[in-house]
Parts: sequence; structure tokens; C-alpha cells
Amino acid sequence: MTTAKPTPDSARLRALFDAVNAFGLDAETGGFDRPAFSPADMEARAFFADEMRRDGLEVAMDGAGNVCGRFGPAAGPVVMIGSHLDTVPSGGAFDGTVGCAVALECVRALRDAQIVPRVAVEVVATADEEGRFGGMLGSQALVGTASPAWVERARDADGVRLADAMRAAGLDPAAIPSARRAPGSVAAFLEMHIEQGPVLEAEGLPIGLANVVSGVCVLAVTLTGTANHSGTTPMDLRRDAFTGLAKVGAALPGLARRGTRETRLTIGHVELVPNAPHTIAGEAHFTVIIRDTDRTAVRVMKAEVEGLVDRVAEEHDLGVHFDERSWIDPTPLDANLLATVQAEAAALGLPAKPMASGAGHDAQTMAALCPSALVFVPSRDGISHAPQEWTDWADIERGALLMLRTLATLVA
Amino acid sequence: MTTAKPTPDSARLRALFDAVNAFGLDAETGGFDRPAFSPADMEARAFFADEMRRDGLEVAMDGAGNVCGRFGPAAGPVVMIGSHLDTVPSGGAFDGTVGCAVALECVRALRDAQIVPRVAVEVVATADEEGRFGGMLGSQALVGTASPAWVERARDADGVRLADAMRAAGLDPAAIPSARRAPGSVAAFLEMHIEQGPVLEAEGLPIGLANVVSGVCVLAVTLTGTANHSGTTPMDLRRDAFTGLAKVGAALPGLARRGTRETRLTIGHVELVPNAPHTIAGEAHFTVIIRDTDRTAVRVMKAEVEGLVDRVAEEHDLGVHFDERSWIDPTPLDANLLATVQAEAAALGLPAKPMASGAGHDAQTMAALCPSALVFVPSRDGISHAPQEWTDWADIERGALLMLRTLATLVA
Repeated sequence: MTTAKPTPDSARLRALFDAVNAFGLDAETGGFDRPAFSPADMEARAFFADEMRRDGLEVAMDGAGNVCGRFGPAAGPVVMIGSHLDTVPSGGAFDGTVGCAVALECVRALRDAQIVPRVAVEVVATADEEGRFGGMLGSQALVGTASPAWVERARDADGVRLADAMRAAGLDPAAIPSARRAPGSVAAFLEMHIEQGPVLEAEGLPIGLANVVSGVCVLAVTLTGTANHSGTTPMDLRRDAFTGLAKVGAALPGLARRGTRETRLTIGHVELVPNAPHTIAGEAHFTVIIRDTDRTAVRVMKAEVEGLVDRVAEEHDLGVHFDERSWIDPTPLDANLLATVQAEAAALGLPAKPMASGAGHDAQTMAALCPSALVFVPSRDGISHAPQEWTDWADIERGALLMLRTLATLVA
Repeated sequence: MTTAKPTPDSARLRALFDAVNAFGLDAETGGFDRPAFSPADMEARAFFADEMRRDGLEVAMDGAGNVCGRFGPAAGPVVMIGSHLDTVPSGGAFDGTVGCAVALECVRALRDAQIVPRVAVEVVATADEEGRFGGMLGSQALVGTASPAWVERARDADGVRLADAMRAAGLDPAAIPSARRAPGSVAAFLEMHIEQGPVLEAEGLPIGLANVVSGVCVLAVTLTGTANHSGTTPMDLRRDAFTGLAKVGAALPGLARRGTRETRLTIGHVELVPNAPHTIAGEAHFTVIIRDTDRTAVRVMKAEVEGLVDRVAEEHDLGVHFDERSWIDPTPLDANLLATVQAEAAALGLPAKPMASGAGHDAQTMAALCPSALVFVPSRDGISHAPQEWTDWADIERGALLMLRTLATLVA
């Protein structure tokens, strides 16, 4: 052990970050496509596992597809640090990837500083954090809340079954329960992530510290009308599923205003059937994403959305089907661990703002297993889940330094 | 020549109808997929051409992909009779196909009755009547209004160019102008078609006779916002392209009510980008189909729709792009030919209702070249452009008999 304060190697961190982002790059849009269990996602995971192996970590992919690398004592609990490598379709370079790269860089920097941790560090790149299948499979499996019943019915927006996607990637969905960690085996979970919102940039702050993470309900809705000719069917005799969708979509912003300051309602995925210009839509399939930091507020808003859809469906003589694809509770994060991170930030002279996280993260899921901390760095223009996603490298370095010092405090 | 009144052979007609519908059947939905110039469409055309050849007609496919078969004198003008074989995606069995089958059955029945026509009959199965590429290529080419400039820019809803689709089908788009018929070379055009609307069924009538056909404007719209994370982006800071689309869609029925009795506004095709549940839509692409029987009414309604889109775009800080994909004028049909058909219907004891056609048809385009008649038979529940499309066989027989007697009057 040494008293030298460890420091991340910025060039090495950036090289790792860039190497991960060689996978799934869409040269046309500049975005990244690593949906969970896609070939690009699996290749990125294999690459990241190889990087950890080369550093001498003890590496394994667990039953849920999480890539884990252990550094330090072979026995005893771990302090887990990491994020995810999967992306939304046409996502940005930073979301998840920067947290994984920082996690491994922290281990490398500990070793550079010849720090032998008394508590093992486990670097983790979780599976399907982006909710392709409606949850956060990787961290839910670690915590033990990815139930076989849920796994059985989980599908993506195109109807692909989670189990089939895992098998196509060479994984066995029946092995998911084996990923569960025993209570006490994980002492803490640390995650650095881009904010994905406009707050830190607007307030000129380098660091955000989540004190609560929004819950999210994924409500899949189908409206069923009658596909018919657009010219011969009088407007008042139509059963137009698109018009129903449009009425719902147009009313969502107003509905959200009746919620809390943290209420977010989004329809981002829409499929019409048959989706032909000259044919009235017979079916409209769409998802409503309901987020809030308060559990009751999510419940109330879900009921409000369903009521809205029912009223529109009745008005336009449409059939309705609801499917709650997933539900993740809002989660307050551990106040003691938050105070530890805040103290490290203060020691580094980094202003750090306690704030709500509007996005769901693995840290939220992991909080059911152990104290979890979620550190934000600023997002330019608040843009995320898009090719234009950007965080200045200087901000990433500040975040990485804070993560490293916090980790060192916990394990050294 | 003989004085025997010709009569269609119902079994032979039905066999031909069923044989055409062996092409493009989607066994899962029960619908038919013969989009213009697709393999299924080309195979159906080749089959229909072979049928006509076996009957001794002089058969050719013209430069626009119309399949034409001439019966009777080799010289002089023709009376053209027919419809189309292409379908909308997941369309019904009757739309177009029944008119083509009836046309060829009329020739067969004339021959059965040993009628030697003094004016040639030309059976035609037109190309892309369903407007995959935004117009009615086949009949527009016959009339000479498929301009090279339009052909050059015509694309389908997925962005496939007409010229590329034709080449893929083994056709040369540069040959389209050669399909043009000289003025005077077509004495009349007769088309039987399913009504595709609820009027005849509701009024218990076997026959409708179109006196005017609606015009149709295909307006393609793109709204551009910012793709962003659905959790972190406050509702009031979003540039949500889907919300813009929803506001437009929700307002269309109200806008249509300010039009005429025949105004129809439809959004049937929608594509969001990136179309991911957890991402605010950065782009919304959609088509607004504007139909009316009055030209000024279409123009005014197009301006109203554009104004609505502009107001919504401004409210939600979205970029707007309009593209008028096609414009077909409303068309009054020839009153003398209508009176001829009406007299034949009366002689047969068939109540026939003069009515507007809300759907566009080849007869509308052909009216620029020659007197054209459009005969409707009832559609069950008014359903069309869908697998559930249905017309009772007894109604088809009545329509076929009226077509045959009208044709005989014109050519015998």
C-alpha cells in the first residue's frame, strides 16, 4: 500500500472508450447501434472482457450476459463499479460506455499507484440496461428481480422475445437466475454516467450526484380499428386507429403538466398496420413511457394515461389492449454513500449538485442489493440517445478522478 | 353477327378471378400483396396476358407496364374495358382484380354469343393504379400525363424510386411515353369496380354509376425535432417530432368537417426516427392524403393542412418540409356515356345510383382521353384496402352483365 493519490490516465481512458465504440458505429448517422444481445453488443462485451483479462482481472460473463472482472482479494465482498455497453438504436457514444471505460481505468490507475485493495473491486458491464426488453436485465439479474415469468414474456418493440435474442447470442435464458448475487456479497455499487439532461450544463456544474432515480413504467398500447380505403370512407364512419393514437399523443403534454415537476411522458415507438398512405390504419401499436421520481405519481399517471386511451378509443370506436411491459420503482439512493462521494468531490474542489435522475440506471436497480452511488457528468445541450450526444473530455476526466478517489476510499 | 343477348359465364369469370388471386396471397392475413412492379404484380400480369393470348386476343405490355389485349378489327379505334391488378399492401381480393376479370369475361361472352364486334374491344390491366408511386402510372401514361419529370422524382413511401422499381421488374422507364394513345384512338373506357364504401349496401342498391371522381393530393410531410432521452428531457424543453405529428393528426377530423361533404383527410403512413420507445422522436415522416370532388376544395384543404402543420411546428419548435408527391384533379365523367350505361341498367331492371366516387380510379384519368364510365358494385361493410374486403358473387354477376350489355351496345 502507498499514500500516493491515484490519478486516471486520460489517454489510456480515451483509447479504451474509442476502442469500445468501434463496435456498432453507423457511419451514415454517426450513431451507435448495440441493442442488447445484438452481434455488435456481444462483440463489444467480448472486447471489454479481453481488455480486463489482459489486465489480469478474473473475468467471467454471468448468466444474464453481464461481463464482470474482479481485481484484488479472491475472497470477501466486492465494491462493484461500472455501467453498460449496450445502446439504444442510433444512440450516442457516451451513454454507458464512458462509465464502463472509467471503471476499468480506475482499476488500472489503482494498480499504477501500487494500491493493493483490501476489498476486491469488480468492474461490471451490465446487459440490456437500455431496456430493449423492457427492463434492465443485467442489474435486475444481479439483484435477483429478473423473474422467470418476466423473462418468459419479455419482448422488444418489434416482438422479438428476450429468450430468443439471448439464444441467438449463444446465451441460455435459463441461466439468468444464476447471476444473482448473495446479500452482503456486494458492499457498494458505483456508476458514473452522462447526465443526459440539460441541468449541469445550464448551471455550469461539473458533477451531479443522484439522490433519487425516477421510476419507469413501459406501457404498450394497441388500438384496433378498421383498415379501409381513404377515399370512400366518410370521416364520421371511420374506425381510424391512427386518429386514436394522434388524439392520445396530442393530449400527453397536457397530462404531464398535471403530474409532478419530474413527470415525463413519451411516445417514441409507433407502428401502424398496414402503414400505407391510402389506407386508414386498422391498428396502431405504440409504447407510452411513464417516468417520475415518486412511485404514487407513476401509478396515478399510468391510470391517467389508460383513462385517456380508453376515452379516445370509445370516441373513435376502437378496440384497446394494454400491456405493462415493465415497471421499475423510483429509488432513493443511499445517503451515506452519497455523503462519501460528496466529501471526495469537496476534497477535489469539484462543485457537485445533488439531483434527481430522470433516466433509469443500473445504480437504481442495484440499490436493492447494496448502497449505490450515481455520479453525473454534463451533457452538451442535454442531448442523449442520439448521435449528437456529447460530453467534453475535461468533464469526463473530472468525473473519472472523482470515481477513482471514491473507489480508493472504499477499498484501499 | 347475331341477335342473341350475350351473358357472362359466372363459373368461368370466378375461375379467372381466383386464378389471378393466386398471386401475392398472404396466407397469414388473408390479404393480397401485389404492389406495383413487385414480383407478384408482374407474375399476375404475365398470367393475365397469357389468358388473353389463349383466347386469341392480340396481347402486348406497353411501356408503362399496362397489359393490353385487343379483340376484333385490327384497325380503327377501340373501346377499352378493364381495371388494374396491383394491390395496396395487405389489400383485398376484389379491388381492381374483379374489373379485369369481368373485362376479359365480357370478351369471352361476346365470342360465345358469336358477336363479331364492328369496333375493336381492348381489355386492359393497368399498372400502379394504387398509387404506390403517388399517381396512376398506367392510365396516366395512356393519356400522356405521366411526364418524364414526374417519373424521375416519383418514389414510394419507403423511398424506392419508380424508375428503379420498373428496372427491377425488367421494364424501361424511358419507354413510358410510348404508351400514350393518340386522341381518337380510344372511343370509350369502361371500368367496373367495387364501391369500396358503404353507400350501395346501406341503400340496398346493386349498381352505382360514378358521375364524378374525387381528386387526390398526396402531401408528404417531415417534422424535424431533436432525438433525446425520454427521462431526462423536461416536457417543456422537448422538440418532439411525434408530438407534432400527433397534434396534426388529432386536428385533421375537425379540419375535414370544415370542408365539403366529400372531403377526406387521411394519415395512413407514419415513420418515426429513431422509433425507439425510450427516445423522443427526432423526425416524423408522414403522408396526408387529401381528397375531394371539387378542385378548389382540394386546393383550399391542402393550404389548410399546411397551415395546421406550420402552426404545430412553430408551437413545438420543429422544422417542416412539404413535398407534394402527386396531384390528380377531380373529374366529372361523361354524361352521355353515363346515360348509355343507365339505359342498359334500366333494361336489365337493375336500380343504378349516380354517385360521387371518393376513390380515384383509372376511369378518372382516362376521361382526359375519351368518354369514360365507372360502374360500382357493393362492398360489404364498405370495407376495402384490407383482407376483409368482400363483394357478394351475385352482385359481381349483376355488374358483369351490365358491363357486357353496355360493351355490346358500344361495339356490336
